Amino acid sequence: MSETTVDNGVNVGALLEAREALTDAAEAAQFQWRATCKWLNGTHSQSSCEGFYGLGDEQKHRTEFKFDTDHPEIFASEDNGATPVELILAGLAGCLTAGVASVAQMRDIQLRSVTATLEGGMNIQGILGIDGDVRNGFDGITVTYDIDADASDEDIEALVAQSQKRSAVYDIITNPTNVSVNVK
Amino acid sequence: MSETTVDNGVNVGALLEAREALTDAAEAAQFQWRATCKWLNGTHSQSSCEGFYGLGDEQKHRTEFKFDTDHPEIFASEDNGATPVELILAGLAGCLTAGVASVAQMRDIQLRSVTATLEGGMNIQGILGIDGDVRNGFDGITVTYDIDADASDEDIEALVAQSQKRSAVYDIITNPTNVSVNVK
Repeated sequence: MSETTVDNGVNVGALLEAREALTDAAEAAQFQWRATCKWLNGTHSQSSCEGFYGLGDEQKHRTEFKFDTDHPEIFASEDNGATPVELILAGLAGCLTAGVASVAQMRDIQLRSVTATLEGGMNIQGILGIDGDVRNGFDGITVTYDIDADASDEDIEALVAQSQKRSAVYDIITNPTNVSVNVK
Repeated sequence: MSETTVDNGVNVGALLEAREALTDAAEAAQFQWRATCKWLNGTHSQSSCEGFYGLGDEQKHRTEFKFDTDHPEIFASEDNGATPVELILAGLAGCLTAGVASVAQMRDIQLRSVTATLEGGMNIQGILGIDGDVRNGFDGITVTYDIDADASDEDIEALVAQSQKRSAVYDIITNPTNVSVNVK
């Protein structure tokens, strides 16, 4: 093993150990992520995330994380939170960026700064029910990374590509996922 | 028009006017939602949403909304925020719940309380790169609504079904969306 002073704040040893430990432990690798959402008023609601299941047991975040969502004033709402679709962009950004830091650490690349800009287009004739041929969701998303690191442009490109390959949220957005909605 | 005292905090008149106004205004209906993400350390980053484009012009939220994402301590991270996949659940919850309130208002149904519980299963052998046949994202999501409203069980079921039909995030998760990731 070569000595390295690269430190992106990622514990690669622990990740490699987890990969080893979970290789033959399908049960422990099965996670369940959760959110509960409470309607407040109008289009404003608050979701919170605290408990989850994984490594064969109930787990808890250090604290409860809360997210207000609402619609903006130009939709005659009170703008008490980001729109739900902006949370999707933030989730994608956070997932890919965590991946960039982790892969950089694995590849001995020191990051100095990483910024991503995300844009998601949407024709709201879909959600307003004006045109059945217009989808409700994004018509596409672009993510643009600006990365300052001790690496060549090629290595930085490869870093971002590898992060995409292992990203949970990138997969969720680019591929279909079954969602079952029920009333208690 | 019948008199109604139903008030879920949703301005249905404005929504119907918007639908009318945007029916022949494809240009104004084209929106662009944005997020910028800054890497902080390790798997921790912060995304913010403030400006967006729509109705043919630049728009701004009343304030900037910020979202910290991180990985939990059991992944050897610092748990400084929810995981990115939990933001996806929160976005889905917020979108469907705003829809429930809006459709209820349209249908003269007074809501008293609406709570949603979301669960997303994930085999992390995918993101860890252990098994190429395991997807990175959720293997499925269930959303369970508990709704107290002045309506029959059937009407409540129909309300939730209509919200799904017009939900941007439900569409984003259940159908594929193109994501283009570039390095500046």
